[in-house]
Amino acid sequence: MSVQTVSTNRSHGGTQGVYRHASRETKTDMTFSVYVPDHREGTTLPVVTYLSGLTCTHANVTEKGEFRSACAEHGLIFVAPDTSPRGEGVPGDPANSYDFGLGAGFYVDATQTPFDRNYRMWSYVTEELPKLVAEQFPADASRQSIMGHSMGGHGALTVALRHPNRYHAASAFSPIVAPSRVPWGIKALGGYLGGNKDAWRKHDTVALIEDGARFREFLVDYGDADQFLTEQLQPELLQAACEKAGIPLTLRCQSGYDHSYYFISTFMADHLRWHVARLKA
Amino acid sequence: MSVQTVSTNRSHGGTQGVYRHASRETKTDMTFSVYVPDHREGTTLPVVTYLSGLTCTHANVTEKGEFRSACAEHGLIFVAPDTSPRGEGVPGDPANSYDFGLGAGFYVDATQTPFDRNYRMWSYVTEELPKLVAEQFPADASRQSIMGHSMGGHGALTVALRHPNRYHAASAFSPIVAPSRVPWGIKALGGYLGGNKDAWRKHDTVALIEDGARFREFLVDYGDADQFLTEQLQPELLQAACEKAGIPLTLRCQSGYDHSYYFISTFMADHLRWHVARLKA
Repeated sequence: MSVQTVSTNRSHGGTQGVYRHASRETKTDMTFSVYVPDHREGTTLPVVTYLSGLTCTHANVTEKGEFRSACAEHGLIFVAPDTSPRGEGVPGDPANSYDFGLGAGFYVDATQTPFDRNYRMWSYVTEELPKLVAEQFPADASRQSIMGHSMGGHGALTVALRHPNRYHAASAFSPIVAPSRVPWGIKALGGYLGGNKDAWRKHDTVALIEDGARFREFLVDYGDADQFLTEQLQPELLQAACEKAGIPLTLRCQSGYDHSYYFISTFMADHLRWHVARLKA
Repeated sequence: MSVQTVSTNRSHGGTQGVYRHASRETKTDMTFSVYVPDHREGTTLPVVTYLSGLTCTHANVTEKGEFRSACAEHGLIFVAPDTSPRGEGVPGDPANSYDFGLGAGFYVDATQTPFDRNYRMWSYVTEELPKLVAEQFPADASRQSIMGHSMGGHGALTVALRHPNRYHAASAFSPIVAPSRVPWGIKALGGYLGGNKDAWRKHDTVALIEDGARFREFLVDYGDADQFLTEQLQPELLQAACEKAGIPLTLRCQSGYDHSYYFISTFMADHLRWHVARLKA
């Protein structure tokens, strides 16, 4: 698999790279970023994958996430994929809204035309990209974890629940936890997966837990000034599902914080410390 | 003086605000950002002013600078002004280049038409903005320091040399140290100040030192992969001038680092630690 280097910059004692490759899954060029701390020649490092939210690309967290200092300290590779296929011929939302289509892949493999050709973000983030990272970077594929924000928090939690043995830790900032029940999710899952709500349940954290999926534990932060909290996020649904299923959940309400990277960057180092304790356990 | 709040976001245990006001100096609306860590009611905090480089606004360092964690830890207010006047009727470079006019105020008070009406960034950053910050924020005006990047490093060093009693510390990332001798500076100083090179010397760090200006000490970092190093920055000229004048200079060449915020963010916390030791001495 050939990977093109878009840019590399030295930062915090490591290399922040941006890369592009022709994706087999999305049938488009996909851009992603990887931070690799300096490390002893021949050694491999655990990998944290971060899934971004609506409207984002790899760039938002790469520029504003404040993850590099902690990754350098702990020896973690940090991978940030894009949130959807992009490019000529990729269908977007006919209404050009921000919450469907380009920038809003929702981490599913679409089954509905015209989206089924390119919108294969589930397979992209769970199969194609991890393999490529394992091949091209000094990554220890046996020590992976996953995290994300908002739509990407949804992605991280569903990926962890469906691959509980591959990921040693999973955490989220302001995740969408029950997309089947909230406007963003209903629009996206309906648009990509159609009307069969059984298919939706495999991409709904709360429904997955109700249907028996398990993960060792979750860390979730959200802000009480988050404008999307009551309509789109509803973390209390995750809390109830985890309680019922016996999944340990550290759910933290951060006073005064909103949905932005000013919030994410505040707690990023703390999440990474939490991940590394589990990756290196 | 009335200040309009553009946005506030809670971050790292403080408030990151963006504000706008009608500037008396530039005769335009000016936007700036201020980070204020949480603090005891009625107390005031030292103020670090950060001057940005060519093409930047307040937003670059505010989003990518990674200063908030250290400012919260040390109890520092962080102020980031824009780099030039902007708006309808403000003349830019007729050739629309990035290194003169909008985004390139060079921290001088222009004397040449048509720039002399609005391009008063020296008076703006040394007089109008500090007064406004002291009035509107819990700032201890007796404990100020200044730092900057590239064109803003030039700004920070010249401001410190001309106000040695007001600023307790001054540092820079990749500063322009001798604008009278390098292409960026020759273009800017010529364009704003005209052909009289005596006027240039008051806005040239090396010339100011040669002419007798002194500051207690400087901290300067640059990267040896900086694309502008040999043509525009020439830190060895600062080193020679400081040595001759007996000004203590900590000049650090950072291996592999370039001119970007990936570099600045790496050493930001270190600079702020250096500032706080001098602000609270």
